[in-house]
Amino acid sequence: MSRPSVLITGGAGFIGRHVAAEMAGQGYDVIVTSQRAAPDASQPWRTLTCDLLAADAPSLLAATGADTLVHLAWETTHGQFWNSPANLDWVAATLRIARAFREGGGRRFVGIGTCIEYDMTGLEPIDEVTGPTRPTILYGIAKDATRAILQSYAAQSGMDFTWARVFHLYGPDEKPTRLVPAVITAMLRGEEAKTSAGTQARNFIHAADAGRAIAAVAMSELTGPVNIGTYAHTTVAEVATLIAAILGRPELLRIGAYPTKAEEPASLVPKLDRLRSLGFKPQFDLASGLADVIRSMKAGIPA
Amino acid sequence: MSRPSVLITGGAGFIGRHVAAEMAGQGYDVIVTSQRAAPDASQPWRTLTCDLLAADAPSLLAATGADTLVHLAWETTHGQFWNSPANLDWVAATLRIARAFREGGGRRFVGIGTCIEYDMTGLEPIDEVTGPTRPTILYGIAKDATRAILQSYAAQSGMDFTWARVFHLYGPDEKPTRLVPAVITAMLRGEEAKTSAGTQARNFIHAADAGRAIAAVAMSELTGPVNIGTYAHTTVAEVATLIAAILGRPELLRIGAYPTKAEEPASLVPKLDRLRSLGFKPQFDLASGLADVIRSMKAGIPA
Repeated sequence: MSRPSVLITGGAGFIGRHVAAEMAGQGYDVIVTSQRAAPDASQPWRTLTCDLLAADAPSLLAATGADTLVHLAWETTHGQFWNSPANLDWVAATLRIARAFREGGGRRFVGIGTCIEYDMTGLEPIDEVTGPTRPTILYGIAKDATRAILQSYAAQSGMDFTWARVFHLYGPDEKPTRLVPAVITAMLRGEEAKTSAGTQARNFIHAADAGRAIAAVAMSELTGPVNIGTYAHTTVAEVATLIAAILGRPELLRIGAYPTKAEEPASLVPKLDRLRSLGFKPQFDLASGLADVIRSMKAGIPA
Repeated sequence: MSRPSVLITGGAGFIGRHVAAEMAGQGYDVIVTSQRAAPDASQPWRTLTCDLLAADAPSLLAATGADTLVHLAWETTHGQFWNSPANLDWVAATLRIARAFREGGGRRFVGIGTCIEYDMTGLEPIDEVTGPTRPTILYGIAKDATRAILQSYAAQSGMDFTWARVFHLYGPDEKPTRLVPAVITAMLRGEEAKTSAGTQARNFIHAADAGRAIAAVAMSELTGPVNIGTYAHTTVAEVATLIAAILGRPELLRIGAYPTKAEEPASLVPKLDRLRSLGFKPQFDLASGLADVIRSMKAGIPA
């Protein structure tokens, strides 16, 4: 029997490289697409350099003959992607890619969703089977709409379909304006690190663990939505406090310096029974994950 | 001030030609797109022959400079469109068209939805503002998803957006396998006309009235979803009985000859307060509308 094969769009990205590494390690024949990255013979996967928004992308992807498609690529520019019109292009491209993949013989499609697809007004951990979706931001609406269409199309066309809803990510090489790198950067510079009161319940998962969780989902037989997170919830204030403790700079912490935005959900955390059913175990807890980011950021600072 | 301009995709079609005629009659500069129809100098509109699924269609459409876009075109092959994978292509094309239209200066986008977007388990007339959507069929899912994305995109980009949810259509030149032409054809041939028990409440609107209603919505300032139907509800059995009465062939009617499908909603009828607020008045009641179809079908039969 030949090796199972997987095509990973955005496979050179923040999460994708971890999905690729995990599946390659599990014996998959891995092909990653990247808009920019050139093939890299040092990696245990092949790279297909292509523009996924181009008209010929669906047929290029289908021609790889991959059995499984993990579709990570999407507009993700921090500060822009929530309401970017590029979300429309990514919905369009994703539907075209999914159809071409299926009609080319593809068996299993793993789409990537987001916790902001959910109704975020509740206070309890959200179950992916019973938790209703009620997105209010274009990015979440576009993702939920894509999921709804592909779930129906998959049922019609006999394709396995699963949808990995990722909660709050952090990790090395994150955009510097996001919470974790912003707090770390300020403290490494000896500057005050300002946050909101940060009492909101959240679930922060290290990108490497998110990648490994998505890989576990991709290699499983699960269908439908699956939450991607860690087994311990936290708050934004706890994240900032932990960073300060690791760096030994608690005096720089200014929790509550920014007002809490009215639209910030009080709680946005997942139930993880489905992920747990796969035996998935995160590699990082919050302390070791933040330490990993700090190590990476220190290494990136010129001496 | 220059004449207002409207671009109508599918403007040569079953509903579209009526939208085009109505808006041309109201002084609009009308451009219709058609995949097949050639320009027709006898009509008070221009025809843009193009394939809306082609990669260059969005820019071709945007280049018309139309102020309003009425987007009727979609996969509509009877017996196929509910679950056709072409629904994915039409979602993709619609999003690309909407974005190019807006970025080219378009002001108002009128999308066409369907009554099967709604939760169809209730028995009361459905309000488009409070009635939840819960589509179960790919066509309805694709339409509802497109609406959700475009409504959010429109809010972001400052575009007027409205979504005309059409109830049950009938009219001349309808696909022969649909209820009205099937019953008429059988009776004109002197054959038995079989239907289900047909007790389901429905709202049948003549295509010319649907076109005029959509034109009224397009020329208004309404935004958000608007139901398109007539002010009198009926049942499938009443439609068949009325056809038999008009044709004087009640003895050919076999109501209840087919079982009622379990998935047929007991009621699927609209509240029409928003359409009524525009002063819209249907041209046909059910009897005169069915008589119109019969007249058209008799004219089409070789002597």
